[in-house]
This record gives sequence, structure tokens and C-alpha cells, in this order.
Amino acid sequence: MKGVILGIAPEARIVDLTHEVPPQDVLAGALALEAAAPYFPPGTIHVAVVDPGVGTRRRALLVTTRTAVFVGPDNGLLSLAVPAGAVTRTLDVSRSRARRKPVSATFHGRDVFAPVAAEVARGTAPARLGVATRPMRRLALPRVRRAGRRLTGTVLAVDRFGNLITNIRRADLGAAAFRRRSLSIRIGGHVVPIRHSYGSGRAGEPTALVNSGDLLEVAVRDGSAAVMLGLGRGAPVAVEAI
Amino acid sequence: MKGVILGIAPEARIVDLTHEVPPQDVLAGALALEAAAPYFPPGTIHVAVVDPGVGTRRRALLVTTRTAVFVGPDNGLLSLAVPAGAVTRTLDVSRSRARRKPVSATFHGRDVFAPVAAEVARGTAPARLGVATRPMRRLALPRVRRAGRRLTGTVLAVDRFGNLITNIRRADLGAAAFRRRSLSIRIGGHVVPIRHSYGSGRAGEPTALVNSGDLLEVAVRDGSAAVMLGLGRGAPVAVEAI
Amino acid sequence: MKGVILGIAPEARIVDLTHEVPPQDVLAGALALEAAAPYFPPGTIHVAVVDPGVGTRRRALLVTTRTAVFVGPDNGLLSLAVPAGAVTRTLDVSRSRARRKPVSATFHGRDVFAPVAAEVARGTAPARLGVATRPMRRLALPRVRRAGRRLTGTVLAVDRFGNLITNIRRADLGAAAFRRRSLSIRIGGHVVPIRHSYGSGRAGEPTALVNSGDLLEVAVRDGSAAVMLGLGRGAPVAVEAI
Repeated sequence: MKGVILGIAPEARIVDLTHEVPPQDVLAGALALEAAAPYFPPGTIHVAVVDPGVGTRRRALLVTTRTAVFVGPDNGLLSLAVPAGAVTRTLDVSRSRARRKPVSATFHGRDVFAPVAAEVARGTAPARLGVATRPMRRLALPRVRRAGRRLTGTVLAVDRFGNLITNIRRADLGAAAFRRRSLSIRIGGHVVPIRHSYGSGRAGEPTALVNSGDLLEVAVRDGSAAVMLGLGRGAPVAVEAI
Repeated sequence: MKGVILGIAPEARIVDLTHEVPPQDVLAGALALEAAAPYFPPGTIHVAVVDPGVGTRRRALLVTTRTAVFVGPDNGLLSLAVPAGAVTRTLDVSRSRARRKPVSATFHGRDVFAPVAAEVARGTAPARLGVATRPMRRLALPRVRRAGRRLTGTVLAVDRFGNLITNIRRADLGAAAFRRRSLSIRIGGHVVPIRHSYGSGRAGEPTALVNSGDLLEVAVRDGSAAVMLGLGRGAPVAVEAI
Repeated sequence: MKGVILGIAPEARIVDLTHEVPPQDVLAGALALEAAAPYFPPGTIHVAVVDPGVGTRRRALLVTTRTAVFVGPDNGLLSLAVPAGAVTRTLDVSRSRARRKPVSATFHGRDVFAPVAAEVARGTAPARLGVATRPMRRLALPRVRRAGRRLTGTVLAVDRFGNLITNIRRADLGAAAFRRRSLSIRIGGHVVPIRHSYGSGRAGEPTALVNSGDLLEVAVRDGSAAVMLGLGRGAPVAVEAI
């Protein structure tokens, strides 16, 4: 992909975001893109490829917002980084004239997404690279439920530190029922205190905190929460205001 | 290596191809380079280091083709990316005046290959960086055998998705005995259908396909063929036209 | 971090050193930085983040030497790459005006270290980015002991090849008691010969050598010394001159 990009747009700055998304894990890729994309400068072109449906009829998309361009498969991978309200244009680039021919049935990263992104990088108008199409498919994340002073959520992902990342957001904890109260987190039969930072827990003890992506996570200082609690994606988590 | 390159050629664009080659696995490195090199623009300098023989008498090579330069150890690592017919010049750079001194006995990537490549990047003529030498050592890949309507090949590598990459090429399957016929793939006691893409198989079911490097591979949708079939490098594979 | 850097210093060249430091392993990070930093050109800004104490009162530092700038947490991570005698200035950038606001309690890489480093890259004087502060915390590495013709040291790290990296330096072996003598290495109940390079040992046999960072290491040709000897960080090692 990098070779193809540099062949088309020799001046492009290429930055690797991550190569640690587990195979076929579209949700993990979507979360990684959501966490990183807002911190890149305006004009950035984000190319994301976690693409188990490559070679089938899933669309290949170029999506623009007011400040950035996103290129990737239509499987939800782009959907967390690009909220519906932020989309200014959705183009199907499956048959883009920018694509390499023949297009491999197994590696559209190289043959479709990289050349389309590189054309944008060298100044080609997106409208010339695809055709207008319906909105992208969106990942249906599990919802956070609230009942009185209790929130119920789910572990979405485990990061490389073994931290359990949940779908409960800082904003959920800022709601009137929870603000300025002591919070107790229940996960996997444990009651876990909520703290400010990784280092403020005791070594080996599970601690909850709101992470740099504004999501509630459970961590173990100097250890792996996933291993210590034996939990992973899908595990339920509850927050109670006391 | 990157620090050394930027010290010599501050304007060089450095692109990481992969850091996932298993330790000492020259064949895996050679396959990765073969898969990527053709997609880089003319003038690219490819530096490859998988070098278990570092510090012994194996040569350090700079090889040119009409469009690119390759720098690395003489252990076959460059040999799949650079067919014999494409070589325009083979130089031994073991004692290149570009090398860092003293040369470490364990890291020629830093002390020989990186500085030699950086000198090429800043415009030094290859002939000034080494002495003409005999052709590079080539990897002897297992051969594909054909008997009537049956091809027999071998698994060469397992990629990070657990796909089993074989030595059977698209061109082998295009031979008269196989073209426009139904093909059946036998591997590890399984009979595997051949399909167009990963997504066209059923989840959990092994599927054969011709990958983006034009090699026959066996994959499992949403899973690992290596794990599910319990196979790896060296496993035999057969293709039969029915 | 890369997005933040490019937003502040669009012309910065960003080079990844490694993403393979084990979680929370400050010593492994410090060794990686020590091994690489001297090979980068003058003017390089090194940003290092292995930061289990993020969000606590540990300082965030910008340290200058005559040729380079180092930015990272005050937990010893920078201390092997920057000997005390090389420091020309130590600044606390915890409350730098360059930091992103609000500063996350869990990711100062993004909110403090990256923006501070990027400001240096675009030409802002370090003195405007922090306040003078006391010297950095330094890692207390185990010491090499010498008694007559015997040195005793310790395994500091295991690299991705399974090599056991010790704290015994080339200079220790160059002392009068050891120079020009046969050396025998004892580790984990084995007596290991010292050789010039990985390739000069026999396959499967443990071999000691002085590596490209001038440290004594124990390797197994075509294998992993850590696995074969069942040893890791903290294992004792002895060198005897015979």
C-alpha cells in the first residue's frame, strides 16, 4: 500500500496508525480509528483496511467530512470515527478509475483504497474518484442502559496492556444521577474503585478510570485486567452511584 | 538503521515494510520483499535484513535492476524479489567505504546495509560503494510438480491471518490441463473448494483462493487455516482438475 | 501522538523506534533508547513514552544535551541514553504552555510529550516550554562485580530473538585481567564459549558474544537462548579468564 501511494503521490506523508488490530476484527479497527483521527491535522486522509469481506459485494467507500477524508471498506470500520452528522459526502469507489488493474479479489488495500487515497493526496477532487452512494453501514455498538443510579454497559475491547475498555462514556458518568457521587464499578464479580490514573491504584489491584478516549476502562496496575479478571469483549459492567 | 540513514541522507523517505518476519526466517523475508517490491515506484532502494550469518564470510550485496536497488545479505533474502534476468549489477559491499567503523559483528543492518543504501539515496554511484562480484545466492524453493491433471505443491509460509501460502502460482492453474475446469484442492486430509475471495466461503470452512501475490493459498473465513488444519510450512498440497 | 506532532510541526520527520517494549517495562524502553539514540543525527528530538506513573506526581521532562533533545516521563526511561555528564539542561514540562488541554490523566504521550517535542521541532526554545528543575531520576542498574579473574553480572533483558542481554560491557572484558585470555561464560549451569558472531556457533548451541551495543549477550544460533536455557531478566552470569 505504501509503495502504491508513493508512486502516485510522491510527496505524501504516510503515518502508520497501528498494525495491531487482530485479524478480521472490524470493531477493534473502528475503535482505533475513532481514538486517533480527531488528533490529526485538517486535511488528513485516513485509509483503514480491516476487510474480511474483500472481493464480495461490499462497497468501497470514500467519505468526506468538513476537515478530513476517510477511505475504506463499507463494513462499519469508518463509522465510529465519522458520526452520521459529520459526513459531507459518501462516494462508492469500488469501480474508481484510480484503482489498479486487475483488482485482486483479496487485497483492495493495495488495489483500491491506497490508489484512491493517493489521488486525493495529490489533489484529485473526490467527486472524480467515485459515484455518490447511500450512507455507510454503521456498527451497532451495545448501548449503555441507565436505571436510576445504576448504569449497565459492556466491555468493547481489550488493549495491548490488558485494559478492559467499556462503552460507558465520561458523559454518562457526568449525568445528574452520578455527578459528585462516589461510584462503584462491578465487573466479573469484583467491586472496583474508580480512580484518576493508573498509578493511583495499588499494584496488582483492579482499578476503573476514564481513559484518554473518554471511555470507562478497568485496568490493573503493573498487570493485565483481562488476564487477572479472566474477562474480555462482551463482559458486562455496572456503575452504581452510592 | 533509520538514524544512520537520516544522518547520511536527510531527505530520504523511509518506509517500513514489515517487522513481523520471524527471527532468522530468510524465506519469510524473501517472500515479503517479493510481494511488496514491485509496487514501489522506480528508483526505490530496498534494504532488507534477515541475517543469521552476520559476522561470518557471507557477502553483503548491493544489486541493481533497471528500476530499483536492493541491499542486503547474500543468503537468498533478495533472490525472490530480483529474478536472475532482472539483475543489471551485483556488487559486494562488505568492505564498502560507506560502512560505519568499527563494523559490529552482529548488526550489519546498522553498520553496512543502512549506510550503503543511504549513500545511494543521496546520489552516490553504486559502483563507488562496492566491487563487482559473482551472482547472489538464490533460495531453492520446492518445485511444483505436474502429472496429468494433478499438481503437487508445498506450503511456503503462514501469514499473520493463519493463511497457508503455497508455491502454486496462478500461472500453474492457467495451464491447459486446468483452465476452465473445476479444481479440487487436497491438503492435510481435507478437500477444499477453490473460490474467488475470503468472504465467499462459509465461516469456519477452509477455502482455497489465488491471493494478491498470485499464489494459491488456503484460508479459513473468520479463522486461522494454520490452526484449524494443524498445518504449516512444508505441508504438501495437491490440485486436481475434475 | 503522530497526529498531534504533525498538527504543530507539519515538516517534522517522524521515525518509529520500536513498539515492542513490553507494557510498563521502563528498563526495556531505556535500553532500546540507549541503543538507538547515538546513531541519530544531531538535532534529533527523541520522545519516549513508557509511563506507568502517568497521572501521578512524576515529572514530565525535557532534557537537552549538546546534540539532542529528549522528552519523556521522569521514571528513568531517558537515563541510560543520557548520562549525567551529557545533560546541558533539565526542564519540567508537566505544566508546559504547549500541552493540550484538558490533559488526560492516562495519556501524556499525546497531551504533553508529543506537543512539547513538536514545539521544539518547529523551533520554539526549550526554555519557553518548561521550568528548570533538578536532575532526572536514574535507573539503578545492577553492577558488574569483579574479583580477580572473575566478573559477575546479570541478564538485563531478553530481545525478540530470545538473546539474553547482560550488563557486562565490552570495556569490562577489555580490563587487564581479561584481555588476550580465553574467556569462559557461566550461565544457568552451562559453560558457554565466547565467539565473534551468531553464525560462528553451532546450530542449537548457546554462544556468548559482544553485541552491537557493546554488551555481552548469550544467544543460540537458529534458536532462542531464553527458551533453551529457561532464563530471563535477573539471571546471574559469570565470566572467567582461563
